[in-house]
Amino acid sequence: MLVVSHSLLRALDYAGVFVFAVSGALAGGRKRLDLFGVFVVAVVTGIGGGTLRDLLLGRLPVFWVREPEYLAVVAAATAATVLFTRLKLPKENRLLTADALGLALFSVSGAQIAETVTDAKVVVVLMGAMTAAAGGMLRDVLCGDVPMILRGRELYATAAAAGAAAYVGLSAAGAPRPLAAGAGLVTTLVLRLLSLRHGFGLPAYELPGERGGGGT
Amino acid sequence: MLVVSHSLLRALDYAGVFVFAVSGALAGGRKRLDLFGVFVVAVVTGIGGGTLRDLLLGRLPVFWVREPEYLAVVAAATAATVLFTRLKLPKENRLLTADALGLALFSVSGAQIAETVTDAKVVVVLMGAMTAAAGGMLRDVLCGDVPMILRGRELYATAAAAGAAAYVGLSAAGAPRPLAAGAGLVTTLVLRLLSLRHGFGLPAYELPGERGGGGT
Amino acid sequence: MLVVSHSLLRALDYAGVFVFAVSGALAGGRKRLDLFGVFVVAVVTGIGGGTLRDLLLGRLPVFWVREPEYLAVVAAATAATVLFTRLKLPKENRLLTADALGLALFSVSGAQIAETVTDAKVVVVLMGAMTAAAGGMLRDVLCGDVPMILRGRELYATAAAAGAAAYVGLSAAGAPRPLAAGAGLVTTLVLRLLSLRHGFGLPAYELPGERGGGGT
Repeated sequence: MLVVSHSLLRALDYAGVFVFAVSGALAGGRKRLDLFGVFVVAVVTGIGGGTLRDLLLGRLPVFWVREPEYLAVVAAATAATVLFTRLKLPKENRLLTADALGLALFSVSGAQIAETVTDAKVVVVLMGAMTAAAGGMLRDVLCGDVPMILRGRELYATAAAAGAAAYVGLSAAGAPRPLAAGAGLVTTLVLRLLSLRHGFGLPAYELPGERGGGGT
Repeated sequence: MLVVSHSLLRALDYAGVFVFAVSGALAGGRKRLDLFGVFVVAVVTGIGGGTLRDLLLGRLPVFWVREPEYLAVVAAATAATVLFTRLKLPKENRLLTADALGLALFSVSGAQIAETVTDAKVVVVLMGAMTAAAGGMLRDVLCGDVPMILRGRELYATAAAAGAAAYVGLSAAGAPRPLAAGAGLVTTLVLRLLSLRHGFGLPAYELPGERGGGGT
Repeated sequence: MLVVSHSLLRALDYAGVFVFAVSGALAGGRKRLDLFGVFVVAVVTGIGGGTLRDLLLGRLPVFWVREPEYLAVVAAATAATVLFTRLKLPKENRLLTADALGLALFSVSGAQIAETVTDAKVVVVLMGAMTAAAGGMLRDVLCGDVPMILRGRELYATAAAAGAAAYVGLSAAGAPRPLAAGAGLVTTLVLRLLSLRHGFGLPAYELPGERGGGGT
């Protein structure tokens, strides 16, 4: 049972790396990079968040040096993206749903890994959000864009933080860990998908002097 | 006495994080980020320099994982900025002075922390300058701007390096550490403020072929 | 003999840092940075790749904190660049050749260092390529450009990866290490120079919908 559950987690983790790597490879294609450049952006997007987490927590060497299968997952995602898009472009819709699943998974798994290093709940939540959201941020910086998660009107890192907080809060309240993990995952996923569908998010912070007209 | 001095240092360190986080939150506002994005930029600006220092020196986990109060300081700075700017924009003037104080403080505290890891004076000075100046650099990269400290005509990282060098030099010459620290802090502060007021700085390095007109 | 060989390696390593630092200083000049900014970009370009490698592998503090002579090499390269370009601009040609030598050297030395931490060949090859190519990537991000190695049509990181792979493959096949190292170095150098001369590289990955006209 425990083994099944562990294998399941690992499979979900690979799935998360895969979808993020696909989004990285597509971003590389939009910039017309060469194939190696596309692979580099896929690597950074797929495993960048977990790498930053491991660096800050001091879990060194970072996870993919210890478990190189993650690099194989990124390579497979890159190859699949390049081959598949010769036939047709994936629907934006499906990509965003897959990306939301990756976000949800990493927000919880990042928090779980941070728990092994620190008891500070605020750090655990932040590490969960960062594991989930930093890969996409690095992807955008590398491609010379202002990070989407900073510009976007929809919830992204906020959804990841909320999921990590749900996991941490329920664990602290005594819920069994698998239940807390599931609740955290669903929280991130639902918030992200609802936000995409209905276009809501946190209010933007605009400096008074730089608003279009009068007002507050 | 020692306790007072230690508490004072900690208070000054918090103050440095606070003013840098304010400058990050304002930068986020200028880019019209949402509230979580504003917090992220404030985090990166406020604690980015010290984080990079800890990573390079191998002091892991990094300081704010061990002492999460620093995250609370950033959160308070973000909230204060968002609320306060609803009333009025802070004067550019005062912000630059506060930023100069943060720069001065971190150049010395960064050097002091580096001393606990290495004896190489050049590394200690560089770590002081980096602790002070890297947060603002990361802020600009994240916001998609060419880092201000690279563009700016006024002294910034150079002032921090000079302060760290004054601290290191006076310590090596046998001065009591608090005195050396004070001298380093004042060096950075005065250089930065004079440079701002009088608009002087290091000469720009321009490649001959790319200057406007003839001449060497 | 061993001593000679070790000294030779060290000398080549310094040479690699030097030429990369020169390319960083020139990039800073193109952006009209001040002298300290030029030094910062030279530092990041010259030792950025090795720093990232050490962080990911957990070899902390990073190499130049342990061996500050590397900073002196960067300072010398910066000074030489600034002084020399007052007389004349270096020929683009020679710079690219020197850069190719640095690339070749770091692809092998980066792989050799990674071998001391992990047995996973794919990680060793990636670390070699990253040590060689990341400095230039960081330089471009810092200067606000899309990294040249991602845009460029010529082989760069790919040449470094091929050289590291040649070294790893020959070592695994039982070749003496100096021979394998030499073969790796030559592989990177020749691929890079041929690619520059004949303008070939990996095919770009273009998304179908974003191509100019019809066709597959």
